[in-house]
Amino acid sequence: MVGQGAEIRRLGGSHASRTPFLQIPGPSPVPDRILRAMDMPVIDHRSSEFAELGRTVLEGSGKIFQTAGPVVIFPSSGTGAWEAAIVNTLSPGDKVLMVETGHFATLWRQLAGRFGIEVDFIAGDWRRGADPALIEARLAADTAHGIKAVMVVHNETSTGATSRIADIRAAIDRTAHPALLMVDTISSLGSVDYRHDEWKVDVSVSCSQKGFMLPPGLGFNAISEKARAASRTNKMPRSYFDWEEMLKPNAKGFFPYTPATNLLYGLREAIAMLLEEGLDNVFARHRRLAAATRAAVNQWGLENLCQEPSEFSPVLTAVMMPPGHDADQFRKAVLDNFNMSLGAGLSKVAGKVFRIGHLGECNELTLLGALTGVEMGLSVAGVPHRSGGVEAAMRLLEQRDQRNASSHLKVVST
Amino acid sequence: MVGQGAEIRRLGGSHASRTPFLQIPGPSPVPDRILRAMDMPVIDHRSSEFAELGRTVLEGSGKIFQTAGPVVIFPSSGTGAWEAAIVNTLSPGDKVLMVETGHFATLWRQLAGRFGIEVDFIAGDWRRGADPALIEARLAADTAHGIKAVMVVHNETSTGATSRIADIRAAIDRTAHPALLMVDTISSLGSVDYRHDEWKVDVSVSCSQKGFMLPPGLGFNAISEKARAASRTNKMPRSYFDWEEMLKPNAKGFFPYTPATNLLYGLREAIAMLLEEGLDNVFARHRRLAAATRAAVNQWGLENLCQEPSEFSPVLTAVMMPPGHDADQFRKAVLDNFNMSLGAGLSKVAGKVFRIGHLGECNELTLLGALTGVEMGLSVAGVPHRSGGVEAAMRLLEQRDQRNASSHLKVVST
Amino acid sequence: MVGQGAEIRRLGGSHASRTPFLQIPGPSPVPDRILRAMDMPVIDHRSSEFAELGRTVLEGSGKIFQTAGPVVIFPSSGTGAWEAAIVNTLSPGDKVLMVETGHFATLWRQLAGRFGIEVDFIAGDWRRGADPALIEARLAADTAHGIKAVMVVHNETSTGATSRIADIRAAIDRTAHPALLMVDTISSLGSVDYRHDEWKVDVSVSCSQKGFMLPPGLGFNAISEKARAASRTNKMPRSYFDWEEMLKPNAKGFFPYTPATNLLYGLREAIAMLLEEGLDNVFARHRRLAAATRAAVNQWGLENLCQEPSEFSPVLTAVMMPPGHDADQFRKAVLDNFNMSLGAGLSKVAGKVFRIGHLGECNELTLLGALTGVEMGLSVAGVPHRSGGVEAAMRLLEQRDQRNASSHLKVVST
Amino acid sequence: MVGQGAEIRRLGGSHASRTPFLQIPGPSPVPDRILRAMDMPVIDHRSSEFAELGRTVLEGSGKIFQTAGPVVIFPSSGTGAWEAAIVNTLSPGDKVLMVETGHFATLWRQLAGRFGIEVDFIAGDWRRGADPALIEARLAADTAHGIKAVMVVHNETSTGATSRIADIRAAIDRTAHPALLMVDTISSLGSVDYRHDEWKVDVSVSCSQKGFMLPPGLGFNAISEKARAASRTNKMPRSYFDWEEMLKPNAKGFFPYTPATNLLYGLREAIAMLLEEGLDNVFARHRRLAAATRAAVNQWGLENLCQEPSEFSPVLTAVMMPPGHDADQFRKAVLDNFNMSLGAGLSKVAGKVFRIGHLGECNELTLLGALTGVEMGLSVAGVPHRSGGVEAAMRLLEQRDQRNASSHLKVVST
Repeated sequence: MVGQGAEIRRLGGSHASRTPFLQIPGPSPVPDRILRAMDMPVIDHRSSEFAELGRTVLEGSGKIFQTAGPVVIFPSSGTGAWEAAIVNTLSPGDKVLMVETGHFATLWRQLAGRFGIEVDFIAGDWRRGADPALIEARLAADTAHGIKAVMVVHNETSTGATSRIADIRAAIDRTAHPALLMVDTISSLGSVDYRHDEWKVDVSVSCSQKGFMLPPGLGFNAISEKARAASRTNKMPRSYFDWEEMLKPNAKGFFPYTPATNLLYGLREAIAMLLEEGLDNVFARHRRLAAATRAAVNQWGLENLCQEPSEFSPVLTAVMMPPGHDADQFRKAVLDNFNMSLGAGLSKVAGKVFRIGHLGECNELTLLGALTGVEMGLSVAGVPHRSGGVEAAMRLLEQRDQRNASSHLKVVST
Repeated sequence: MVGQGAEIRRLGGSHASRTPFLQIPGPSPVPDRILRAMDMPVIDHRSSEFAELGRTVLEGSGKIFQTAGPVVIFPSSGTGAWEAAIVNTLSPGDKVLMVETGHFATLWRQLAGRFGIEVDFIAGDWRRGADPALIEARLAADTAHGIKAVMVVHNETSTGATSRIADIRAAIDRTAHPALLMVDTISSLGSVDYRHDEWKVDVSVSCSQKGFMLPPGLGFNAISEKARAASRTNKMPRSYFDWEEMLKPNAKGFFPYTPATNLLYGLREAIAMLLEEGLDNVFARHRRLAAATRAAVNQWGLENLCQEPSEFSPVLTAVMMPPGHDADQFRKAVLDNFNMSLGAGLSKVAGKVFRIGHLGECNELTLLGALTGVEMGLSVAGVPHRSGGVEAAMRLLEQRDQRNASSHLKVVST
Repeated sequence: MVGQGAEIRRLGGSHASRTPFLQIPGPSPVPDRILRAMDMPVIDHRSSEFAELGRTVLEGSGKIFQTAGPVVIFPSSGTGAWEAAIVNTLSPGDKVLMVETGHFATLWRQLAGRFGIEVDFIAGDWRRGADPALIEARLAADTAHGIKAVMVVHNETSTGATSRIADIRAAIDRTAHPALLMVDTISSLGSVDYRHDEWKVDVSVSCSQKGFMLPPGLGFNAISEKARAASRTNKMPRSYFDWEEMLKPNAKGFFPYTPATNLLYGLREAIAMLLEEGLDNVFARHRRLAAATRAAVNQWGLENLCQEPSEFSPVLTAVMMPPGHDADQFRKAVLDNFNMSLGAGLSKVAGKVFRIGHLGECNELTLLGALTGVEMGLSVAGVPHRSGGVEAAMRLLEQRDQRNASSHLKVVST
Repeated sequence: MVGQGAEIRRLGGSHASRTPFLQIPGPSPVPDRILRAMDMPVIDHRSSEFAELGRTVLEGSGKIFQTAGPVVIFPSSGTGAWEAAIVNTLSPGDKVLMVETGHFATLWRQLAGRFGIEVDFIAGDWRRGADPALIEARLAADTAHGIKAVMVVHNETSTGATSRIADIRAAIDRTAHPALLMVDTISSLGSVDYRHDEWKVDVSVSCSQKGFMLPPGLGFNAISEKARAASRTNKMPRSYFDWEEMLKPNAKGFFPYTPATNLLYGLREAIAMLLEEGLDNVFARHRRLAAATRAAVNQWGLENLCQEPSEFSPVLTAVMMPPGHDADQFRKAVLDNFNMSLGAGLSKVAGKVFRIGHLGECNELTLLGALTGVEMGLSVAGVPHRSGGVEAAMRLLEQRDQRNASSHLKVVST
């Protein structure tokens, strides 16, 4: 036991722990139940046993999108599901309205451009969600109805700003413009309240590796009647991502080509887990964890990239570095010293922000463990900050049993 | 113990055994090593740990395609990889030459049609591979070089006929025609000898759930220099399946969008397993198992759908039902009584053939167990046949230690 | 394809298949459902969540033993459960009656000897079960009631003879002798009909790796009131295997020391699987598979070690080698050529018999695959035999849908 | 987003997170690598493949005990390994010297009593390790050498005090007393520096579910030549735990009865992981985590049960509750609100202490996550404390890159 102190001081590296913390905003950690459900023999995708699986996941996915309409599932990334939304509804030369909420909105725009879509891209500063008023103005001005679709990212994974889709829907409705509403719910679905039917979204785009807590490999489209009607007349060559090809065999629980069977096993388990917890509880859990994260960030004296409190993301928080400090060096210090992966700043904000994911399989102690890694990392990397961030987060999270914590929380969440 | 006989006679159903036999020609059974490799936490797809994985599977895949050139891997089914081959090399209105070897060749033709490709489809009777002479004749006649590509299915999964790609290559070379050669290796790669570079194939298309012994969810393209050059000038809108978008980040082990990480874990293990066994041994094993299967079929007095001995498939055997007997009723009897899934006849041969898969994780005793299921199923379903099929297969498979078994084998393999 | 025949003839070894057949009479193959149930995080063994698990497996085990009384579960092998039966009921110097049914009966006798128990060991030829008449005679002669226990192996794993416990019970009852009846059900429980309560067994001994289809690591004792009363007065030092220490915390679902939690997860799944199939169906399945195995052995012209048809084991068949042929060389040939493990002859019959396990997770096609391995192995090893064994087994197993198969079956099962 | 604050305040329960924290002092969390290694088909325990496994784990276990002598592995709990130490070396009526370090020392004493061993039990207050001076005094007084063994618990899991075995060895040596030295390393082995050979321990007792990071189910004895000699002459009936029965087949990698094969798969992986990290690094990691835990406890103003700084346990910290506060109510609040299991106070200290495990698969962020759960739990349960405990732990753990942190550490570790 003598000399213990000396060894405690030893430099890190070889003693880096084995169990990593994965706190990127997706892929999110996969729960054991889901991994184990996937770890089973593959079955004949033309069997009645498969049909039962197929029906279960197709119907169950609808519950998560909060839609009574069809959901299609592709063996693809979320990017593939973006492409599916476009090639099934639009034609080369069509004009659409998009909003520059961040990196992923920009990528989606580029993807549209590759298919000959003309994009009216409302510029943004990456610090808030899509502005319903601006959308309303553009649509109101488009009296010729040249705009075929409004395409918005619900939760901008690169910035931590969640656009208010219900408000955007209302804005569109006020103009009585017939444009389709297409929404990227890639990092929000299953973690943030999202209502495909109630908000009259025409195409909702999502994937497996965020709120569904699955490994990557599945893309989703939830489809309105109006979108499906558009798909019958649009002119865009397609095959793999064609909805009708999917929907025909889907009616009986089958797929037009070999599906990613084992990911579907996992999806069945994931849907069951979300419904067991209850979607409202899942959403509340994410809001609570996000509020705690912001409490820590505020205490550290760092700035949230998202500037609009009503649009703070429940699934990730993008944190701005103080001037003169590089976010990627900080992330490296955290990874090297504490074996935790944080999300990088992307594109315009590369090196300027780091992102803390708190989505999917995340709970109080996991999040707080992650926040200790951030706080210690700020010290280790020499980034100026106030201590006490983790403490602030704890204070918020321990409030659950207190009846009159509203004033405290009001401060935090506004 | 008294009355034991009575219970043995009880009808099947509830006592159907739990461990199924999956003898469809893909998805093939996934070995435990691969399932377990996939059953691990997902990692950050932008980390150096991921880059190491990415490089390993991209390089390793090349060894299986027997190419020194690039291989791209999509989160998709094999159908997606077909689409990738087309959208990266051809333009709407282009003309290609395809051969009707069976159901999957026909599907590929339809897919091409959806992208505005004009297909010269050499008719076939689904009982042999693609005829090099016919391809040669068409190309020789195309002096204007209007044909942009020859597209062939290496192993036609619907019929059990394996086209002779080396001979087709030679036929093309004799005409000095500049058409690209694109080959579907979906059910052959990793089980049947296939040489992308030596045979100067331009695009080889494959997927994860056959010879790679993985669950479905990955599509592959191996790409020649010539194909890549074509991709730089062709006119086909694309994004998800775009090669250049893949190849840029692939150079460092990364992917342009979130890859199917856990399937890549499995792919790393699968490649290791194939190389441990040795590709030549893997190919020989499949040929041996196929020969045993045919020995059984011959003995039963049933007919192999494939009529050309030099094109018998090493990975599956499609068996014709005697007139008046329905293949699907037979398959149902096998499934209900013996818990084994056999492949159905597809499209033109629906109800007329059943298919025995013997690919991927298949060995002597597994195959023979499957053949006992077929032989007993023939009895149970009342399909006229000679007994002794399993015995014939055993006789062939036990020959391994005998030096002068050539005459016996010659009979079988010709 | 040219030269295919040549490669088929290649000698085995490197192309030995990866998926082994495990046809020893235990450990039996573990179903995926059970392995996956065990592949979960360990939990606090003092938590209410654990108590729920504990109660479930303790009660469920009783259903498999067909007892309403207590069952205790040790982290141990079956050998440990043997020891538990002895140390809880007997005292040094006590006399017991045992029957030499084979190797395991002999081992149990040795174990008793190590604890100072005097064993009256009824000699046997290892070719039949325990003779009720002999037991009756010994007890009748023991008018002083010096014999404290009759200890019998239900299914002698070394010989494939199943003693008739109901008849033994009746024999004991006829003598009105107060001896305890202790039965080793190690390889029978969960596969062969066994009725702890109905047969008034006092201690039933079992383990995890046979009919429970689990990995090794759990030992079981089902305990009658009479046995428990004996445990309160016997004189044998014990701690780890002490029943009372177990039974106290067991009442609430807990254990006196850290239990093998993950094996208990598997046990919960195993019990569920057995009850889903239905114990009667499970027993009938084993009888059917055993009958098929014997049909093959008969056809090969080999001799079953067990000579008494009413005692043929449903879970394994021990086959005698023809004179001059070594069973272990044969087993090695089977393992080297076909990657199948068969059971060795033990002790007195070492080298003279091999054993085919057909217990636990075994079904028609798995068994027939195994029998093809035996039949080919006989050829490869040059053991004289008639071919047609697999065929005979198939003929029996395909009878399930035939109404008047009784005569055929009568021949087989007698 | 409106009303978010309201929902954050919702009471816990249904939204309790799914991923539990297991911070009891064993069983410790099982790493994925180990669980997956165990999740594989069982093999024939008489095969050469098994022998390879057996030799690997037997030799590897020796490296962890730091012995060149034999280690035996039982399918048992640690309690079974205690029993093995006794029944192999002592005889009924023998006298031994034990030290009351806490609950587990007391249990071991009771176990010895059940085997007729007379125990001289040096009383203790459960707040420190075994005192070498007292042991020396007793042995010195025992000039007749009636004491056959000194039995000590290395790390007392119930109190968090680690006895100084090297000093105890020196004390024994000074008396030249021939007693055997037997040490319980159940919760220390593989986490705390332990040297069987160097410290001339005769029997070291351990198990699988602590430093080995395995599920429970294996017990270990490392055995000196002197202990083995004692086992040849002692008089204690035994069979299951008999060393010689083990050592004979162990020499070739086999076991005398069916071993817990899948746990041995896990053991092979565990040993590999420990040696990959390096034992010195593993030991240093545990000391560092323990120091951080104590820093938190000090800051909270709570008292460490262990009062001797040189004996603070690297693997767990037992914390005393303030008077009037029940530890189990506190633990329940932590479990209900934060889904973390803490260790209970046992026996004499039931309700008075809770125990924080930080052993095996534990690292900085996991530990800090656990400490946030303790700190919030203290608030939720209304236990008086100073905040800032997690902060103190972070300050210590972030010191790794600072050269002159000695003064800080000195304060913490004393």
